[in-house]
Amino acid sequence: MRIDIVSVFPEYFAPLELSLIGRARERGLLEVNTHDLRKWTHDVHHSVDGPPAGGGAGMVMKPGPWGECLDELVPGPEVPHLLVTSPAGRPLTQEFARELAAEPWLLFGCGRYEGLDQRVVDHASERMRVTEVSLGDYVLFGGEVAALTVVEAVTRLLPGVLGNAASLDEESHTGGLLEAPAYTKPAEWRGHEVPDVLRSGDHGKVDRWRRDQSLIRTVERRPDLIARLDPGTLDERDRRLIEQAGLAPPRDDEAESKG
Amino acid sequence: MRIDIVSVFPEYFAPLELSLIGRARERGLLEVNTHDLRKWTHDVHHSVDGPPAGGGAGMVMKPGPWGECLDELVPGPEVPHLLVTSPAGRPLTQEFARELAAEPWLLFGCGRYEGLDQRVVDHASERMRVTEVSLGDYVLFGGEVAALTVVEAVTRLLPGVLGNAASLDEESHTGGLLEAPAYTKPAEWRGHEVPDVLRSGDHGKVDRWRRDQSLIRTVERRPDLIARLDPGTLDERDRRLIEQAGLAPPRDDEAESKG
Repeated sequence: MRIDIVSVFPEYFAPLELSLIGRARERGLLEVNTHDLRKWTHDVHHSVDGPPAGGGAGMVMKPGPWGECLDELVPGPEVPHLLVTSPAGRPLTQEFARELAAEPWLLFGCGRYEGLDQRVVDHASERMRVTEVSLGDYVLFGGEVAALTVVEAVTRLLPGVLGNAASLDEESHTGGLLEAPAYTKPAEWRGHEVPDVLRSGDHGKVDRWRRDQSLIRTVERRPDLIARLDPGTLDERDRRLIEQAGLAPPRDDEAESKG
Repeated sequence: MRIDIVSVFPEYFAPLELSLIGRARERGLLEVNTHDLRKWTHDVHHSVDGPPAGGGAGMVMKPGPWGECLDELVPGPEVPHLLVTSPAGRPLTQEFARELAAEPWLLFGCGRYEGLDQRVVDHASERMRVTEVSLGDYVLFGGEVAALTVVEAVTRLLPGVLGNAASLDEESHTGGLLEAPAYTKPAEWRGHEVPDVLRSGDHGKVDRWRRDQSLIRTVERRPDLIARLDPGTLDERDRRLIEQAGLAPPRDDEAESKG
């Protein structure tokens, strides 16, 4: 996969040299290029923003530098999926990350200040797919950390990047439940013990314990996720655990729901 | 505010030198210390993880180094709010960021691999407040980018950090609606014009246009946010716009809702 990132703080992306992303780049699984938006300015101050039309606080990123930047980075005929970071964008989810991981080329445009002039998105949409993307319902200084997050979420789904593909299946959010608590050695630490069942060697019991803990955690912390579970994935014990917590397990037949 | 961050990749936090966070640190509004967890290991490999008790994929962070790290960083009697990054944690929201911005001391523990041994959280909870925090429903390589995001969301809410306090009020997610599209000069760019109303000089009209655009965007992109609006903030025109989109405006009296 090829990833380009355009930002007024290209140094922000130093973390992409580290750890598994750095290794994926060394192994040629991922190509990442960062670009300084100010390269496409022509005034002595390299200014990239201006006051909002109609008045108000903050500054808006001018369309000119973005337009020239996209002209140069995307000469055609191949075009990337342009992802513009914005708190008003489509929220990142594991599903969205999976969609993005299937694409050959992503180009991130990092918004700063009050965001990009809307015409950058409107104009780019004429020749490439453009999606505004948000990390969640909170506000950041700029889109750099959002781009970094999306790159992490996407990169780890690329074939060959994670050593152990099994951990992709077991982890939080792939089955719609939060992960069970994890333990490692020593068996006793500062008066706290690893739960007996995890030391029993009985894999069936371990699996059931983890499933129970996942359900209990999800019920306690994220009841919103319970309603979105695929009813086909729940067995009798799952349903009983959910009901004991005072929640209604999701049903196969939506029409029957008394929600 | 004091922020400590513990990670096996302390270099990940280089972006905290940049931009407004760097400036807030220079101005003494924020103190940030990063710590390498491996400092509290005693074997020649500086190992911080072990296989999960009960078997399974991935590695779990050992309790020992975390325990010693917290002993040293938190000698007492003052204790921080310990934030452990985890996909199973409390999702970051603007409201959560606001709560954190009111605290004097935050300590981030960045999970990697399959996360921290649960006993680190259990044990630390005996003497300080501990919250597991998540960026959203997606999986990352580790908690570093999550910590970076929380630090950004929190820092910008600290008194004196943002030059123009007005932009705190206007932006996405503070009023529960997405922000209206923004524009700056030039008035015409590559055949796309700034909407006339924004050049009218009529502040009342500009405000109403932005309000309409915010509502339309929110209805189209995030109908989930419409249901959560405070009914008292909606006027007749707001309600009409929401109804025209086929959605039900939130009501004052929940009991009357036919939703």
